[in-house]
Amino acid sequence: MTLTGENFIGFKNSAEGNKSFQAFGSTTNDYLPGNFTIATKEEFETVLALADGAFPIYREVPAAKRADFLDAIAHEISELGDALVERCCQESSLPAPRIIGERARTCGQLQMFAKLLRDGWWVDARIDVALPDRLPLPKADIRRMLIPIGPVAVFGASNFPLAFSTAGGDTASALAAGCPVVVKSHSSHPGTNELVSSAIIKAAKKTGMPEGVFSSVYLSHEDSVNLVKHPVIKAVGFTGSRSVGMRLFDAAVSRPVPIPVYAEMSAINPVILFENALIEQKDKIAKDLAASVVLGAGQFCTNPGLVLMVDSDASLNFRTAFAEQFAATAPAPMLNRNIHKAYNEAVKSFQSAPEIFVLAKSAKEAAAERYEAHPVVHMVSASDFMSKKEFSEEIFGPATLLVICKDQPELQATLQALEGQLTASIHAAPADEAALKPIVNIVSDKAGRVIYGGYPTGVEVCHSMQHGGPFPATSDARATSVGSAAIYRFVRPVAYQSFPDHLLPEALQNANPLNILRLVDGNWTTNPIT
Amino acid sequence: MTLTGENFIGFKNSAEGNKSFQAFGSTTNDYLPGNFTIATKEEFETVLALADGAFPIYREVPAAKRADFLDAIAHEISELGDALVERCCQESSLPAPRIIGERARTCGQLQMFAKLLRDGWWVDARIDVALPDRLPLPKADIRRMLIPIGPVAVFGASNFPLAFSTAGGDTASALAAGCPVVVKSHSSHPGTNELVSSAIIKAAKKTGMPEGVFSSVYLSHEDSVNLVKHPVIKAVGFTGSRSVGMRLFDAAVSRPVPIPVYAEMSAINPVILFENALIEQKDKIAKDLAASVVLGAGQFCTNPGLVLMVDSDASLNFRTAFAEQFAATAPAPMLNRNIHKAYNEAVKSFQSAPEIFVLAKSAKEAAAERYEAHPVVHMVSASDFMSKKEFSEEIFGPATLLVICKDQPELQATLQALEGQLTASIHAAPADEAALKPIVNIVSDKAGRVIYGGYPTGVEVCHSMQHGGPFPATSDARATSVGSAAIYRFVRPVAYQSFPDHLLPEALQNANPLNILRLVDGNWTTNPIT
Repeated sequence: MTLTGENFIGFKNSAEGNKSFQAFGSTTNDYLPGNFTIATKEEFETVLALADGAFPIYREVPAAKRADFLDAIAHEISELGDALVERCCQESSLPAPRIIGERARTCGQLQMFAKLLRDGWWVDARIDVALPDRLPLPKADIRRMLIPIGPVAVFGASNFPLAFSTAGGDTASALAAGCPVVVKSHSSHPGTNELVSSAIIKAAKKTGMPEGVFSSVYLSHEDSVNLVKHPVIKAVGFTGSRSVGMRLFDAAVSRPVPIPVYAEMSAINPVILFENALIEQKDKIAKDLAASVVLGAGQFCTNPGLVLMVDSDASLNFRTAFAEQFAATAPAPMLNRNIHKAYNEAVKSFQSAPEIFVLAKSAKEAAAERYEAHPVVHMVSASDFMSKKEFSEEIFGPATLLVICKDQPELQATLQALEGQLTASIHAAPADEAALKPIVNIVSDKAGRVIYGGYPTGVEVCHSMQHGGPFPATSDARATSVGSAAIYRFVRPVAYQSFPDHLLPEALQNANPLNILRLVDGNWTTNPIT
Repeated sequence: MTLTGENFIGFKNSAEGNKSFQAFGSTTNDYLPGNFTIATKEEFETVLALADGAFPIYREVPAAKRADFLDAIAHEISELGDALVERCCQESSLPAPRIIGERARTCGQLQMFAKLLRDGWWVDARIDVALPDRLPLPKADIRRMLIPIGPVAVFGASNFPLAFSTAGGDTASALAAGCPVVVKSHSSHPGTNELVSSAIIKAAKKTGMPEGVFSSVYLSHEDSVNLVKHPVIKAVGFTGSRSVGMRLFDAAVSRPVPIPVYAEMSAINPVILFENALIEQKDKIAKDLAASVVLGAGQFCTNPGLVLMVDSDASLNFRTAFAEQFAATAPAPMLNRNIHKAYNEAVKSFQSAPEIFVLAKSAKEAAAERYEAHPVVHMVSASDFMSKKEFSEEIFGPATLLVICKDQPELQATLQALEGQLTASIHAAPADEAALKPIVNIVSDKAGRVIYGGYPTGVEVCHSMQHGGPFPATSDARATSVGSAAIYRFVRPVAYQSFPDHLLPEALQNANPLNILRLVDGNWTTNPIT
């Protein structure tokens, strides 16, 4: 399949610019075919004008039709077949089974939002009927629901070229909400972007969506910030580094009209190992934790980058078992050269600190020409850990840091000192229960998801998922970027007061034609209003 | 009743500072009794340490107990009796029936949140049960609910000394959510604040709440910003001017750890009058609109400051009727001297513009020594209105601006050019319906609440109320500051994965002991999980 390298400007493809770039394959240590052209100022403005023009049309498209659009995107992505898997593997250096799984997840997300739209209850319809005879004042009829916020800018992530990129969770939830999407494609996987964008445009045309409902562009760093600043854009979805996320956040909040930014940025995802869990399950935990650290070359926002335990014979025995398991892990190529360089530098910087010990590393050499990351486990005392802020900074890759606490109070203090996290995981046995409750309370306050007896990698796409947490894990802890609740990022409530029934949106009409659960006078019901 | 002028530092009263101020009564043109002492740096830090210490205790207080606390606050406020009404009238220059009504509303809000806590469904419990045999990967049990965000700073508003101040909607919703509150009392009504704060503290002690769950302080402008910047504070509620709101917003988003600010700031609340509505109901609309403009001396965030119509014989006739009705309105004293001065300056500035005509004003003189506002109606052509940004700035007081459009497209263009609004109101008759739909769409996109055949003043406290809108109406259009949904400002979701049942919060336990509606595997149900 030949890649054109063009931008997707609404329904037109365009490459007017004179700057282009190529994707680079880590495993082959070479550039990949395809010249991808950075959008010009004119193309940039056209994209935003199209999104602006599409919004009033798209927001009026019935939810069931938007659902058809999302299902059609999933179908068209599947139709891309092996070509997508192949290109995506080349660009990400991730193995085919992972990409095939990620494709299933991406299509599953789109279908989940399609089902949510057909179910319809997500608009949170609330109705308080009029009481014209109420004293001292009559009560008006008021009906409230969620409506789309406007065009959304989506920044593709390097580490999920499908599930968090062009047709990923941000795009799926924004389109589901009724918002046009402008994707800024990640420079690591432009070919994947081109294939997926073509699938989305095909689906939009087939299901009769307005031009401008989706666009996808290659942008300079400067224009990436300009995208966030553009008055047409009403919200931003981003997954990536803390520094880039904060640049977008700062741009968004300093606009004349500030807008919400959902930036998922940085987490070290503490794993807390209690003594009795280690006594009972030392080997299993050692094995599973090692696997979680090196999964996907550690390139997950949920990578367990911090493991905390109180010192004891059990923890000593665990460390030995863990070191052994870890030695058996294999280096793997990283997503791109920059990430590989940053990983090596971060590991080097850690190891130059006198407080840090190396507990274990992969027994295999990492192949530099394939940009492989060498898995490593560092160790530090809790007091030293708390003494330097840089020890709690994320190392993006297959590295983790064991923090040894002298007692429970020091474990609690160490957790209290952490920044916000996406997740926290706890391994405990019934005999640990007395010490458990305060720890659960502390980590609930620090993280968006708390895992018992498991590992943070593997984020289920479902209604109950919370993938988001206190800053700097994300810029907005009220939001999730995974699961059906991700749709709430791109809506706001509007109340209609004393409206004639036929002028109301269907979700709020007396007859309840969508048959959705609504809060009517304080009671949740699907009954019509009579 | 003697006022101490002290700060409420947790359960202790304290006035260590050497700077104090008095309240001023507009109607008496004199200072009122009571010297209110600005909190010192030490008192300020103590307040925040107490809030920080109270949070882990208060968040664990069962919802039913928090409900008792809220009910007790309402009870203690009622127990303050006439002393509260009297002082509040003196400090606000609002008439006693209004203050009595506002007290009822304030207590009603507290009781509404108490009921919401007892109902319990508001935590948005979502459960997806485990599927250990799922292929290719087993599915973990995940359960998600809303938890409190942490200590909240509340800034009292001048125009609602009870309902948007010390024990107002921000405080009630934050306490309901499980968040300790630090109130920065408004300098216009410190005596009211002292009385209400004493009621809250009494209720906290009677219902066994932890010290620090509520504090109330008098702060310098500088320390008001420092309150927003303080690391203990996790969210901010504010109602007031755009300039102060934006100062707090900027402080909050530039913190090392940014926090959400719910600032309700500025709106002119367009009222759109269609031709046939004016033909059918000219006199009624003229009368009711005039009443809405001057209600409470126009000192409402929902004051109808902009009235739009297409020019026609009907609109000409309406203007004559409106001018007549408006002449019969009466001047009334304003909340404080600064607001009175700002009103007079804004009106003067409007009238100095050559594009602006005076259509009507109150036939009665305004008494300067009582700081009365003189009600006035200005008029401008739509093209002139759009030509100068200052014509769409809020005049806080009993003034409104009639905008005359030459046709429907100009009406639409004028609405499109508006900034975000709290409300938009539409008066139409069946014969106007063809022109109506595009207008409803435009204003739904601009405002938080759209009113048909009514006026924006009078904000019902209920589940379906949306009191919030796109910037600059509020700093966060996703939120409401009135109604039960206001609680969502001070919470965030957390997911528990694979937790043993007894370690889960009650809302998520299998047996559903709170008997709340939950989303279980995609279906809303109160059934237990078996």
